[in-house]
Amino acid sequence: MTITLPTTLNRSRDLVEPALRAAITRLDENSRGVAAYHLGWVDADGAPAAGGGKAVRPALALLSARAVGAAPEVAVPGAVAVELVHNFSLLHDDLMDRDAQRRHRKTVWAVWGPSTAILVGDAMLSLAYQVLADAGDDASVAAASMLGTATQGLIAGQVEDLAFERRSTVTVEECVAMAAGKTGALLGCSAAIGAVLAGAPAPTVASLQHFGEQLGLAFQLVDDLLGIWGEPAVTGKPVGSDLRARKKSLPIAFALESGTPAGGQLGRWLAAGGPDTDESVQRAADLVEAAGGRAWAQQEAQRRLELAAGALDLADLDPAGRDELVALGRFIVSRDS
Amino acid sequence: MTITLPTTLNRSRDLVEPALRAAITRLDENSRGVAAYHLGWVDADGAPAAGGGKAVRPALALLSARAVGAAPEVAVPGAVAVELVHNFSLLHDDLMDRDAQRRHRKTVWAVWGPSTAILVGDAMLSLAYQVLADAGDDASVAAASMLGTATQGLIAGQVEDLAFERRSTVTVEECVAMAAGKTGALLGCSAAIGAVLAGAPAPTVASLQHFGEQLGLAFQLVDDLLGIWGEPAVTGKPVGSDLRARKKSLPIAFALESGTPAGGQLGRWLAAGGPDTDESVQRAADLVEAAGGRAWAQQEAQRRLELAAGALDLADLDPAGRDELVALGRFIVSRDS
Repeated sequence: MTITLPTTLNRSRDLVEPALRAAITRLDENSRGVAAYHLGWVDADGAPAAGGGKAVRPALALLSARAVGAAPEVAVPGAVAVELVHNFSLLHDDLMDRDAQRRHRKTVWAVWGPSTAILVGDAMLSLAYQVLADAGDDASVAAASMLGTATQGLIAGQVEDLAFERRSTVTVEECVAMAAGKTGALLGCSAAIGAVLAGAPAPTVASLQHFGEQLGLAFQLVDDLLGIWGEPAVTGKPVGSDLRARKKSLPIAFALESGTPAGGQLGRWLAAGGPDTDESVQRAADLVEAAGGRAWAQQEAQRRLELAAGALDLADLDPAGRDELVALGRFIVSRDS
Repeated sequence: MTITLPTTLNRSRDLVEPALRAAITRLDENSRGVAAYHLGWVDADGAPAAGGGKAVRPALALLSARAVGAAPEVAVPGAVAVELVHNFSLLHDDLMDRDAQRRHRKTVWAVWGPSTAILVGDAMLSLAYQVLADAGDDASVAAASMLGTATQGLIAGQVEDLAFERRSTVTVEECVAMAAGKTGALLGCSAAIGAVLAGAPAPTVASLQHFGEQLGLAFQLVDDLLGIWGEPAVTGKPVGSDLRARKKSLPIAFALESGTPAGGQLGRWLAAGGPDTDESVQRAADLVEAAGGRAWAQQEAQRRLELAAGALDLADLDPAGRDELVALGRFIVSRDS
């Protein structure tokens, strides 16, 4: 069968966005407006805007219900919940990382200040569980429990990420463990929560979750590649933004661990702390590449994607639903922003 | 019957603290240690400490189960959940309010920085719902839904509180609405969640929740009185700390709205912005008193306490459990720190 990804994502959006909008109306008036801005529905003055992320997590949630033979509607509370948790984490992470821009727009803390970013993030996190509780059955309790575990993993990953900033070196293994928390945990939950809500058996849920976790690592590798070689006009970030931020991303950790002369030079450049001219940052990016960091990250992203697809082979899934999950995975890993 | 409050609180602590400690072990290693510090179990170096708050909310939760004739054990997941939500809000509020001290100790952000306070607060909020989800029955879904509504009320109250800081005047009515969210919502939930977990009928739950909400307003009035006239050695805050912070607390809002000369003088003192010598702050406190703010807040706290007790008369409750709830309410309102 031919799968057109925009169709999958658009169909998901059509089903999930009304429920997400309904959930957001339950926030206090101030937080509601800020959340609508963060989600790309309005601009900072409250005028309607057409924007927002790709909503990959809700799409995974719906597909996970479809993959176990259930109607995607069953997964809607789960889809809304994972999207809320994802956006809560963006709000808080942008503040902690002092990122003033996201998707070519000012971040919430940069517009309204730190306290608003904290409070609206809190409100969205709490709302995620409310949405599941209001679905109100045994399956939603299991879904809330799974979401809780994923959220703790997400937070643990951010804790490690911040700890890495205070260290001079970080091993590739540590980086992978961090990304498994920060990115893998919620993608794993997203790719399984619809199946949980559909009452699928535990081994099937576990396979779907494993698919999402591996996909999360592939996703992070691509993100890290874009953080060095992404096109500024597309990503909305400066050239080599992760190098400027002295971030220990996966390709950088690989390069530093490579034992190559380029890796050694990169280590000295990172320790020297500037100057961060475009030329200097470009040379640092070339060092990551010369040390093998770029090729490794590209191959590793492919390998994780194959591991993800392989996890689905272990489960008894609806073939069309399975194919859509894999196609969505490929789309995520081939993105350029 | 004679009720000894320390007994109620100690019995509650004996039942709830092991479950709270078990829940905290589910956080990542770093957050676990910080949460243990915040909860008063260890000092900043990780050495055991004997401390912590009065744990009024867990006690209310257990009593609410007892009041509907159930074993207090039924309420334990609810007691842990409300205590976690309360502590999440303290962690985030201390950061937003830049309060560097709580209960005579440095606050988490003052020891470990803002990001740690944000992340550990997030982890505790999420954990509250996990604890309820892991209780895993229909009643726990209803409890999670109630906790969600209360948490949104709590956040909305903090949103308003911060908005007040940017305004020159705030009416008493607005202040009461803010306190109903910031303090009343979670106390209302605490005083009913055990009954929800025990499967009590909706009107009984509503009466208990109303009791807690009114108690919350009484609690806030007492807190505001202590914020002006509290004994620094007991409260751990400087003399007239709310006046120094130019906080629009309830007695201050009443004084400003009183139309008295003292109220007018107070308004000018607040607008002038210093000097904040002990003498000057003491004079401002005298102005609040002369404008009737102190007497009003004392009477209003009593009135709210009576409204709270009255709410319980509408419900069919176990008399001993009811008496303990009322006694705990009186204790809360008579506290000096």
